[in-house]
Amino acid sequence: MSTTSTPGPARVDGRAPDELRPVRITRNWLEHAEGSVLVEFGSTKVLCAASFTEGVPRWRKGSGNGWVTAEYAMLPRATNTRGERESVKGRIGGRTHEISRLIGRSLRAVVDTAALGENTVVLDCDVLQADGGTRTAAITGAYVALADAVAWAKGRGLVRASKQPLTGSVSAVSVGVVDARPVLDLRYTEDVAAHTDMNVVMTGDGRFVEVQGTAEAVPFDRAELDAMLDLAAGGCARLAGIQQDALAGAGA
Amino acid sequence: MSTTSTPGPARVDGRAPDELRPVRITRNWLEHAEGSVLVEFGSTKVLCAASFTEGVPRWRKGSGNGWVTAEYAMLPRATNTRGERESVKGRIGGRTHEISRLIGRSLRAVVDTAALGENTVVLDCDVLQADGGTRTAAITGAYVALADAVAWAKGRGLVRASKQPLTGSVSAVSVGVVDARPVLDLRYTEDVAAHTDMNVVMTGDGRFVEVQGTAEAVPFDRAELDAMLDLAAGGCARLAGIQQDALAGAGA
Amino acid sequence: MSTTSTPGPARVDGRAPDELRPVRITRNWLEHAEGSVLVEFGSTKVLCAASFTEGVPRWRKGSGNGWVTAEYAMLPRATNTRGERESVKGRIGGRTHEISRLIGRSLRAVVDTAALGENTVVLDCDVLQADGGTRTAAITGAYVALADAVAWAKGRGLVRASKQPLTGSVSAVSVGVVDARPVLDLRYTEDVAAHTDMNVVMTGDGRFVEVQGTAEAVPFDRAELDAMLDLAAGGCARLAGIQQDALAGAGA
Amino acid sequence: MSTTSTPGPARVDGRAPDELRPVRITRNWLEHAEGSVLVEFGSTKVLCAASFTEGVPRWRKGSGNGWVTAEYAMLPRATNTRGERESVKGRIGGRTHEISRLIGRSLRAVVDTAALGENTVVLDCDVLQADGGTRTAAITGAYVALADAVAWAKGRGLVRASKQPLTGSVSAVSVGVVDARPVLDLRYTEDVAAHTDMNVVMTGDGRFVEVQGTAEAVPFDRAELDAMLDLAAGGCARLAGIQQDALAGAGA
Amino acid sequence: MSTTSTPGPARVDGRAPDELRPVRITRNWLEHAEGSVLVEFGSTKVLCAASFTEGVPRWRKGSGNGWVTAEYAMLPRATNTRGERESVKGRIGGRTHEISRLIGRSLRAVVDTAALGENTVVLDCDVLQADGGTRTAAITGAYVALADAVAWAKGRGLVRASKQPLTGSVSAVSVGVVDARPVLDLRYTEDVAAHTDMNVVMTGDGRFVEVQGTAEAVPFDRAELDAMLDLAAGGCARLAGIQQDALAGAGA
Amino acid sequence: MSTTSTPGPARVDGRAPDELRPVRITRNWLEHAEGSVLVEFGSTKVLCAASFTEGVPRWRKGSGNGWVTAEYAMLPRATNTRGERESVKGRIGGRTHEISRLIGRSLRAVVDTAALGENTVVLDCDVLQADGGTRTAAITGAYVALADAVAWAKGRGLVRASKQPLTGSVSAVSVGVVDARPVLDLRYTEDVAAHTDMNVVMTGDGRFVEVQGTAEAVPFDRAELDAMLDLAAGGCARLAGIQQDALAGAGA
Repeated sequence: MSTTSTPGPARVDGRAPDELRPVRITRNWLEHAEGSVLVEFGSTKVLCAASFTEGVPRWRKGSGNGWVTAEYAMLPRATNTRGERESVKGRIGGRTHEISRLIGRSLRAVVDTAALGENTVVLDCDVLQADGGTRTAAITGAYVALADAVAWAKGRGLVRASKQPLTGSVSAVSVGVVDARPVLDLRYTEDVAAHTDMNVVMTGDGRFVEVQGTAEAVPFDRAELDAMLDLAAGGCARLAGIQQDALAGAGA
Repeated sequence: MSTTSTPGPARVDGRAPDELRPVRITRNWLEHAEGSVLVEFGSTKVLCAASFTEGVPRWRKGSGNGWVTAEYAMLPRATNTRGERESVKGRIGGRTHEISRLIGRSLRAVVDTAALGENTVVLDCDVLQADGGTRTAAITGAYVALADAVAWAKGRGLVRASKQPLTGSVSAVSVGVVDARPVLDLRYTEDVAAHTDMNVVMTGDGRFVEVQGTAEAVPFDRAELDAMLDLAAGGCARLAGIQQDALAGAGA
Repeated sequence: MSTTSTPGPARVDGRAPDELRPVRITRNWLEHAEGSVLVEFGSTKVLCAASFTEGVPRWRKGSGNGWVTAEYAMLPRATNTRGERESVKGRIGGRTHEISRLIGRSLRAVVDTAALGENTVVLDCDVLQADGGTRTAAITGAYVALADAVAWAKGRGLVRASKQPLTGSVSAVSVGVVDARPVLDLRYTEDVAAHTDMNVVMTGDGRFVEVQGTAEAVPFDRAELDAMLDLAAGGCARLAGIQQDALAGAGA
Repeated sequence: MSTTSTPGPARVDGRAPDELRPVRITRNWLEHAEGSVLVEFGSTKVLCAASFTEGVPRWRKGSGNGWVTAEYAMLPRATNTRGERESVKGRIGGRTHEISRLIGRSLRAVVDTAALGENTVVLDCDVLQADGGTRTAAITGAYVALADAVAWAKGRGLVRASKQPLTGSVSAVSVGVVDARPVLDLRYTEDVAAHTDMNVVMTGDGRFVEVQGTAEAVPFDRAELDAMLDLAAGGCARLAGIQQDALAGAGA
Repeated sequence: MSTTSTPGPARVDGRAPDELRPVRITRNWLEHAEGSVLVEFGSTKVLCAASFTEGVPRWRKGSGNGWVTAEYAMLPRATNTRGERESVKGRIGGRTHEISRLIGRSLRAVVDTAALGENTVVLDCDVLQADGGTRTAAITGAYVALADAVAWAKGRGLVRASKQPLTGSVSAVSVGVVDARPVLDLRYTEDVAAHTDMNVVMTGDGRFVEVQGTAEAVPFDRAELDAMLDLAAGGCARLAGIQQDALAGAGA
Repeated sequence: MSTTSTPGPARVDGRAPDELRPVRITRNWLEHAEGSVLVEFGSTKVLCAASFTEGVPRWRKGSGNGWVTAEYAMLPRATNTRGERESVKGRIGGRTHEISRLIGRSLRAVVDTAALGENTVVLDCDVLQADGGTRTAAITGAYVALADAVAWAKGRGLVRASKQPLTGSVSAVSVGVVDARPVLDLRYTEDVAAHTDMNVVMTGDGRFVEVQGTAEAVPFDRAELDAMLDLAAGGCARLAGIQQDALAGAGA
């Protein structure tokens, strides 16, 4: 099967199959947080706030190692129809749990917790507006907020100047099979139409941190899987560049 | 006692005692919501989203009357130190409950629910950044989002063109006694220092909807109360003008 | 506008506009509590129990200051139709939260926590029967129970004899605009009919601790507000006298 | 083994082993409830409110049968040291559940639900002050409140005059082995000291509805069990008489 | 009344009124637990796992005494129709609470907590399949798992060889009045049909630990109660023998 | 990089890198459930119960389509140290949610919900003993229980004989990189040591339903990913054969 060469119908917004939506990373969006980023993948907007605090959770005390974790949530009207607040329901849903855990694991894949010392960084990723790819935007933005928080801590001597708690960068993108054609960075309408939906998290040097593929209706074969992995690798490489550019900027 | 003429020390940001912070109302901040506003009172930023849906809660069915309600929340890193999410705690705190109820009551004071028909508008007020006055900013912004949602519904015939569900406008402001001097629209540092803290909600035609004054440490006398009410009346009049200007703008 | 002189129709129970219901304070209603009061405002009956314990909550340890807090609740059949228990629902409602916080703040306004030392007093205010004004009765009764608990603690040397943890007394009353006329201490049927409902908490020396006014349907103007404040001041002065008389009694 | 003839040390309050505490049943303690009783077993005070409503829970609709259920709770300062509210904890404890279920089952043992018709009676039993035997006092008082609520319903034609929903009366008492001697109606200090604690619920005609005996520390033999059952039968017979006298009274 | 001699109709599975179902105790059913038993009373299957840990809950620290507790639960499809999981409901039901507490109390009746030392044993009793008598099977099986866990701890020196934390054995059985005839060890269909249902917990030397009898519909008289107690004593004696045989076996 | 040819150290239980543990599928383990399987992957034991009920959840009514869902849970002592029950904690953990959702999605990939008609099958997968691979064993066993429940429904005419609700079979297996070598079906100790952990769900005809790979510490490259996918494909093919054999058996 040869999927990537299929021309197929145009995508909903005219993008090529391997084309990202416009990605924008705005640093220092908040005044209080040690690192904060508004990340936009097209109409998807996620506010990522990094909170740096000295000390670690009880179960990690005395280990000499730091901790990085994340919490993901969606504002009730981020989506097309209003969703009930999880605080009102009194419980976190399974999807929220899954994504929070995914973001935390993804970031820890590029953190040297010994170099971080006994400090904690919590990444709050709140979706202000959703149009597909909220978890991948969150990971991509959270990395930049985390980098800013680490720099802030080094500036205040909370992390030694000689230490490098970040061993690399990390970003994420979605891929899927829509109309029998693998495509990159799905919008919401594409996500709904996709037979297969995959989220891929990769380091800046091109290795995999997470691969999560789900056949929504029709199981996929190895050729489709390979094509999706190729698209994802290309997309993450471009996102790594955008992150690097953002961090090279003035910062405010 | 004569409080308003006391010159006193300068306020933290140099404002006069009866001066509002710069207020900015940005309409249509979200794509999906029927009405949405980012309202800023200085550094305080609240995203107000109005969700219009046909139908009413079960207890109101068949009454011919609509319903308007509100939910207030704060992002974990809106504040100087991170607060735990209420969804994670599994319960809504008392302060959140109080403010949600206050916003809902304030808006309903200018809603003719019969004219609205059996439709519901939920106002989600999420504090993205907090520097005092989040509930008053929320009420002020939510009114504009509500007005936009009502206009949207009239445009689609969900509310009859001949009906006017809004009987007036509503806005809110805080006042307090800081360093023995009544001042308008307190920032967070002033709020913490205030002996008395009062939130006043008023209609565009100058009547009171809510008066909530609390002596944080030192009880206040009638002269101080009168001075605060005067300041609040002036502040709300100016906010009503800003709301009117925003709604007179292009909208997008 | 001249509101207080309006004769208007008789009140439901024939009271004058500025007349309190019969108020009764029965001290030592319980055997175990360090202070306990059954307070009655007409048919409204609230059991106020003060629990004095040595030590303070964790966040206050080592401060040298004590803590006073309150919890308000209603028995399921205190009202005309049975309400579901909040313990069964698994969550405290917004109204309960609000009132508990109001009672706690009101009492703390007359407490010198340094003089109290690192001790805690919890005031449990359980409404046995409700006919309007439960929160104001609770504050009025809780003050007396608190005074008894402080005396108990002094008697046992848990608070030094030379210290005076209470800087004054505090009481509360409701006022409202019913049939366009301001009236004092509303019964349930008046409360339902009121256009405006206000609860006022005052110290024994006539200063304000809390002013909470809400326009239930029709916003109120400054003249109505002033008239309500006048009525409240008169009512609280009489309640302060009743509290003083009760505390001057034998106590059991 | 011969237990009942053992003279043994005097009981803490000088009662004979087979002697009840002073029992007082005050009907119509509340204004709103269809039946209400303040029942006192010595210092133990339980407020029992019967709420009669037309209709039955969904799972019973169309059956032609009514429903009787109960909820038991304790005010936080009913006991010697303050207990946390279950509404604040967000969950009902096991003991509360057990006792609520026991009271409901006990009452249903004397209810002909067909004669009651599709109506529901909820018995709220709130312990205002606890000194042992709160569940047995609750059952004994709740029966009287239930009888008043049924009479109320017959008076309004909600239950047909020809029907008799109550097939008999029910009361309850505790027995235990204290200092190797079976005793009736234990106070709190006796309950704590008891090797065995048993609650017995009986109908007015002397049959058993519930027998719940627990060896707190030392298992008990058949002779002790028989002695306890004899004491309980005598106690319940006297309680049935007190209930009958209370219901024969004027009622208010 | 003479109940035990009544021949009556055959029981659903042909057993004599005083006959237990086939009872099977399989030790070491799990690899990880310090003691584990699959206990079967006919089709009722309960998995009992004993977890031994050093240390005790906070409220017991420094007492020198150990702690034994139990948790009972039912798999959703243990029963004829699926029950919702209590973890999904977010709360433990009253029945589950009651039974967990009963199992814990029953085991503690034969535990010398001082001899156990500051160690904790938790007994998890999970019903894999239910056909009546799950709580009595749980107690009977849990005792054997507890005995194995204690032996394990002695083998590792966590409990001194000279100590005997178990002062005897404990088992339990249900009895009831079905078709006006007392019968032993009820299956589910008998339980549903029973006028009276009683669970009896006894020590190996024939004393009572718990007696819990409930008239489901028709109150029972003293003769029926005595007949049920006789049946239970016989049943528990046989169960004690089966436990002894199981513990005398090889263990795997 | 060439990973599969590396001989490397022996696995903890001597298996070849591409060797499954002994897999055992016991059908009809429960009497009540419409389908039930005890599935064992070595020491991992999962009880899978399929509950077939007529009707569908409210949101699916009238669609003509059925619904298949799953709930996963672990007994507290399935693991080496006891875990607290989620019912006691009052909330389902993120991991439990994730796995329940994964099992449900995996089964739905082979279900034709239109052919199932408006019926629901719930698969309860309770881990009795855990030694790695509990979610993959659960999926593998649940498919067989589902097939039995569907056959049961066809036998009773609840699903038309002409319909085939199952479009194929589904199974799952874990793969990982341990000591730099990809291996199949990890035990718990291997899982802990793995740098990468991947769960793969495949249909009986060799297509992918889910691919979930996580770098626990060291990101993995494309060659390692390809090697793991190859191992998984082989493992799932063997599991499909074992499922087929089980279903071809007598059934008990």
